[in-house]
This record gives sequence, C-alpha cells and structure tokens, in this order.
Amino acid sequence: MALPTSIKLFEMAPRDGLQNEPGTLVPTAIKIELIERLANAGLTHIEAASFVSPKWVPQMGDASEVMHGITRKPGVVYSALTPNLKGLEGALAAGVEEVAVFGAASEAFSQKNINCSIAESLARFEPVLARANDAGIRVRGYVSCVLGCPYEGDISPHKVAEVAKALYEMGCYEISLGDTIGVGTPLAAKRMIEATRQQVPIEHLAAHFHDTYGMALANLYAVMEEGVGVIDAATAGLGGCPYAKGASGNVATEDVLYLLEGLGINTGIDLQAVIDTGIWISQQLGRKPSSKVALAKSTVG
Amino acid sequence: MALPTSIKLFEMAPRDGLQNEPGTLVPTAIKIELIERLANAGLTHIEAASFVSPKWVPQMGDASEVMHGITRKPGVVYSALTPNLKGLEGALAAGVEEVAVFGAASEAFSQKNINCSIAESLARFEPVLARANDAGIRVRGYVSCVLGCPYEGDISPHKVAEVAKALYEMGCYEISLGDTIGVGTPLAAKRMIEATRQQVPIEHLAAHFHDTYGMALANLYAVMEEGVGVIDAATAGLGGCPYAKGASGNVATEDVLYLLEGLGINTGIDLQAVIDTGIWISQQLGRKPSSKVALAKSTVG
Repeated sequence: MALPTSIKLFEMAPRDGLQNEPGTLVPTAIKIELIERLANAGLTHIEAASFVSPKWVPQMGDASEVMHGITRKPGVVYSALTPNLKGLEGALAAGVEEVAVFGAASEAFSQKNINCSIAESLARFEPVLARANDAGIRVRGYVSCVLGCPYEGDISPHKVAEVAKALYEMGCYEISLGDTIGVGTPLAAKRMIEATRQQVPIEHLAAHFHDTYGMALANLYAVMEEGVGVIDAATAGLGGCPYAKGASGNVATEDVLYLLEGLGINTGIDLQAVIDTGIWISQQLGRKPSSKVALAKSTVG
Repeated sequence: MALPTSIKLFEMAPRDGLQNEPGTLVPTAIKIELIERLANAGLTHIEAASFVSPKWVPQMGDASEVMHGITRKPGVVYSALTPNLKGLEGALAAGVEEVAVFGAASEAFSQKNINCSIAESLARFEPVLARANDAGIRVRGYVSCVLGCPYEGDISPHKVAEVAKALYEMGCYEISLGDTIGVGTPLAAKRMIEATRQQVPIEHLAAHFHDTYGMALANLYAVMEEGVGVIDAATAGLGGCPYAKGASGNVATEDVLYLLEGLGINTGIDLQAVIDTGIWISQQLGRKPSSKVALAKSTVG
C-alpha cells in the first residue's frame, strides 16, 4: 500500500513529555518558551497542558498560567488534557481550543492508572464531551496500552477497536492509539490498526508510539503503510517511561521528521529548528535529547 | 510481500564493534570471552577479528591470539576481515574459516578510507579471493556507503548494484550492504535493494545498517519486506560512528532480535543471553549498551 503523501504531527513534549520527566518542576516561563519555539518551528498541533488536580500531577499545576502566557500563533492548535468536567471548565476559562480525554484498552491498567474500569472511564467522559460540544471545541480521545500492558501483557486488537469505537461514537474527532510501554512491533501494530479501522475510519486514527524498545519508527513506518496519517511525538523524546527507569518514552519528533523527510512526506516543519529546541529544553532539564537525529546532527563537524 | 520466515544474524561486536570503540585497547582475554559468550547465546556467525596492519588498526593487533584463544563451538562460523593477501595468510594460519573483503559504493569514501579507487580496491581483492578459493574458505564482501557517503552525499542504487555485482562475480558468496553513516530511510533502502537484486540474487544479500539516525530497525523491516534474509548487528550496539562523535554506529543485536521475535521470525538466539553479554561487555568498556531493549529490560522491576 502507498504511504500517505502528508502527515499531521501532534507534538507531545510540553504535556506528555514534561509530565513524565523526573526531577524538579519546570518553571512556567520555560514551558511557555518551549511551546512558542515549537510553534515557530512549524508544529501546528501542540498538546500544551493538562487540567488535572495538582495533587495528582504537580508537574501540570500551572496549566492555566501556561495557557494564558503563550502568544498564540495563527493556525496552531494548543490543546490540553481534561479528564473530567472540572478540568474542562478550567481549560475553557484558559482559552483552550481543543481538549483530550484518556482511556485504556487494558482493564488492569485502567484500574491501576485511573482507579476505575474502562466502562466507568468512558461514562465519566460523556459529560466532558457534551460540555465541549456545547462550547464548540473538539475532543481528542487517547487509548493507552494498545500493544501491551505492564499488568496484563498482550492486548487484543479487538479490545483496542472496541474502546476506540466507543470514544469515536461519543464524539471524539480523532483517536490516538498509544503503545504506552513501547513493546509493540510492526506486524502487531498493523494488526491493531487493521482491527481498529473496521470501527473507526482510518483518517480519524493517530499513532502514539513510545520508543522504549527502539521499535517506534519501524512501527510508524508499518502503520503508515496501512494508511495512518497522524503521528504523535515529543521533541527530544521528552518523557521517560515510568515502567522502565532510564528507558525512553515518547518517540522523538526529530527522528519522526527525519524518517518522513526521507520518505518524501512533507510536514511543513523545520527539522533543524526542532533539533535546536530539543537541545535547548534538554539543557534546561539537565539531560541529553533522546533523539538520535539530534545527537548525530549536533555532533557532526 | 511476505516477510522471511527465518533470518541469519551476523554478529559484528568483536570486530566492527570493538574496532570503533574509543578509548584504550581491549584486552585479548576480554575479546575471547565476548566471542565465546556470543556463541553460547546462539549466534552462529561471528566476525571475530581483522587481520590488518596494527599500525593502521591497533585495536585488532591481537587477531591471531584471539583466533587461537577461542574455544570453537561446533556449528559456529568465526570469520575475519582480510583486506589483502598478507592478512589472509595470517587469518589462514590462525584457523579462520571464513574471511571478508571491504569495498565502497562511493569513490570519495574509497579514496579517503583505503586510499585507492573502487576499481583498484576490487583489483586488490582478486588474489585474496583466489587464495581463499584455493584454501577452500568462503569470502564475504562488504560494500560501504550504500545509502549515503560522508563526502559525496547521496549514492546511486545503481552504483551499489555495480559494486555488489563485481564482488559477487569475483566469488564472494554473500554481499553485505552497509549504511556506514546510518543516514538511510526505508524507501531509499528498498530502492537500493531493488537495484542490487537485479545483479545479485536476493538470498546472497545482507543488510548492514547503522543506527546513527535511529532508522536502522525501520530500514531493516523495509528490506525484509523485500526479502532480505541476512542481517548484520553488534551486541550492545558496540562501535560508535566515527563521523558523528557520541552517535550510534551498528544497530544493536538485542534490538534486532526483539524486532524479529515480535515479527514471529525465529533465529534460535537467546535474547536474554545477548542482553546479559551486552551489559557485561559495556561494563568492561565503561559505557552503557546503546540497545534500547537492553536498557528497558534491565531496568524493569
């Protein structure tokens, strides 16, 4: 099958990335600068914050300040995670243009991560979707553990399809399929997409793959062969894997961009500007970018 | 196209890996232990040494001692690089069962790396091939820079095919196609294989991909879709990239094995034993394995 001619990149570093970085809290001003740099590099979809209780996720306690602080660039969507109505109201008050809810394809993960069943989590999202619809903003749905669960192991592609369908029918415009622990390999990823596209049109599916086992780019290539046209990634590969200390989490935006450029797929994003941003934010965090492209390009010559 | 049902792995750590590790010389006893551990993990093709002038490559100065020192495991092929007749005689005296010669698909790289044209390098290999044939041992041919050159940039797939054909017609039983600087992406890798298989039967081609830009596994997946059934890799990703300080060289054997296991392709190799070997040799070298699989598996739990 032919690869897509264009890919929409969804940038995760400010939220999924910074939320999972170990160590001290990142200052609000740094978060704002990160988001603005990413927008200036050409990224048009940036998950900028999470409106959750700071008791649970202290890293995201300044979500309102971040959303109010950024200078909005025309054409860029700044979205936020809103797991419940309270979060959604906070996001709306902060001028968020798009929100996201978060379900799992694994019962055990749902219980351990958000303390309720998959069905209960979906029921909780219904008022969020209804209120977002009233407010005229779009909702993205995440499904985690689509290629494996730290508690259950293998996950059936049909379970993924079922949860994706529920979120889609509830009104989510796009379903982002997350390999949360990065255990997937290309044929498993293809099978998962093949099952899910039976329930949700392929143009409404996104691949959110982690690089914990180094498989993310091979998996992305495989699902692009299936027609997936939306990819989630985090600059500098920000966000470690909470289930494997020292291992990688999100696939690096730089590496995805290099892959896409090599495949002749245009994104309108300036790779060098993303590399520079990744090196800058990594310095702020006292770490190295986990992007191999950044490491290769920045040390050459 | 269906993926191959089995893959032959060619292990590079003791030669291509250690030769390109910065720092002090690795003791002979450590090299011997590395080779024996790899064989015990189930690897059946191990490039164990290089018979070159120690003036040029001091890291390989103990090639004879290494070859004499290892306890040979039945069914395992221990090969060595032999760029000229003198090297071949040394290898034969040390009981090497298979040797390899090394050409480039880039004129500029050939000139800078081995100080002669591609045609001159091929001519130099002729007596090596003839003598190896007399001695009844097989010769593997490497082609470097098949997806890009640090001096010339892009390399034509037809140039790769031409050099591969010359080595094959000269008597090399297998042609290993090296993305020496790791710049390739999947469609470029496919196009290179498509051109080369017109000149050399696909079952005589191997993929030798470096992970400098993080593309190696995606590229391997793509060329396996083309039918490539032999893969070169180095445990722990040993061997940095001499053209990008701090960047990765060889794709890690552990990561290739994880990919193959996920694809349902059997190799007979014990992944955990390779991970353990990679961690052990990395400790000897004072570095971390560059295998993401090793990092994820060794820090879980």
